[in-house]
Amino acid sequence: MPRLSFWFEFASTYSYLSALRIEALAAEVGVAIDWHPFLLGPIFRAQGWETSPFNLYPAKGRYMVRDIARIAATRGLVFRLPEPFPQNGLLAARLATVGVRDGWVAPFTRAVYVAEFAEGRDISDPVVLADLLAAVGVDPGPAFDAAASPAIKEGLRVSTDEAIRLGLFGAPSFTAADGELFWGDDRLEAALAHARQSAV
Amino acid sequence: MPRLSFWFEFASTYSYLSALRIEALAAEVGVAIDWHPFLLGPIFRAQGWETSPFNLYPAKGRYMVRDIARIAATRGLVFRLPEPFPQNGLLAARLATVGVRDGWVAPFTRAVYVAEFAEGRDISDPVVLADLLAAVGVDPGPAFDAAASPAIKEGLRVSTDEAIRLGLFGAPSFTAADGELFWGDDRLEAALAHARQSAV
Repeated sequence: MPRLSFWFEFASTYSYLSALRIEALAAEVGVAIDWHPFLLGPIFRAQGWETSPFNLYPAKGRYMVRDIARIAATRGLVFRLPEPFPQNGLLAARLATVGVRDGWVAPFTRAVYVAEFAEGRDISDPVVLADLLAAVGVDPGPAFDAAASPAIKEGLRVSTDEAIRLGLFGAPSFTAADGELFWGDDRLEAALAHARQSAV
Repeated sequence: MPRLSFWFEFASTYSYLSALRIEALAAEVGVAIDWHPFLLGPIFRAQGWETSPFNLYPAKGRYMVRDIARIAATRGLVFRLPEPFPQNGLLAARLATVGVRDGWVAPFTRAVYVAEFAEGRDISDPVVLADLLAAVGVDPGPAFDAAASPAIKEGLRVSTDEAIRLGLFGAPSFTAADGELFWGDDRLEAALAHARQSAV
């Protein structure tokens, strides 16, 4: 089965859109998804940004909110910008890295995005994250222990380094086995088509 | 007939994609297009950028070239990044402002984009622009005289101010009569649908 890597950052609004639809779309076209949590913070800081470009460039930020609201409406999704924005997604990303290892990354990631962008919950709060883990059938204690381990912390750093190596500069991004890169929820269909085509 | 404003900047690679397809798409859905040349330079400089973000952020620039090459291929278009990039589109934008007044903005704009992004010609060169004007049936002499007039120079400045007032931060952008803003060639279909729907 052809594979596509899905690179997501928990602070990213457009990653929310992709996380909620990628599995259904991929199943329709027979592509398997590899979920890759990574951090945009180090990538943004390397180009001199200390916060989200949507905060640095207010016109772009206002447009993003409107653009996502329009798209969310067509997909039956709720969207509101969390307060504060961007949220600190480090702990969630470490937990998702545990989820990649243990097989629950997809439902956990979807639960985090819904909590953050539909329900206005604070995804940097361990209490919120424990609640989300439990809701998708994961025992929070061992998951938090693993998330705090050197191996998982290093795994997330390696994932971010790999993202940079692949040319990523934003999220969501998608990479095929041949290295072809697609950026943005609006390129998901093209990325899936490429994954299928290049695997033939 | 519902109307949609098409805001384009001659240095913008994604504006090329929209300029070549907007009239055909708009005709299909019964929307009239108002062509608005404007300048991104003043908008970029106001946020501290002295060149294209595709130069400031090289990973983003490399991706843009690949992304447009993929899209161009599906549309039967040629694309190559001009040298230097971005091109200086000031004179072309002043001429296009004359074209708005005199009714030849659409064919002239398409000719400029093809020269720039398919043929690798220097669109800051008056000789090239005179050639393109003649090719679309416009007498270059009076067009250049008008482009150098205070009224046209001021018209382009006013257009750029209006773009800022409407919340524009990039190109291509599309605005409907109700002020709804869409950014990017990949939002053109949604912008046309909105223009139709909001005019009902």
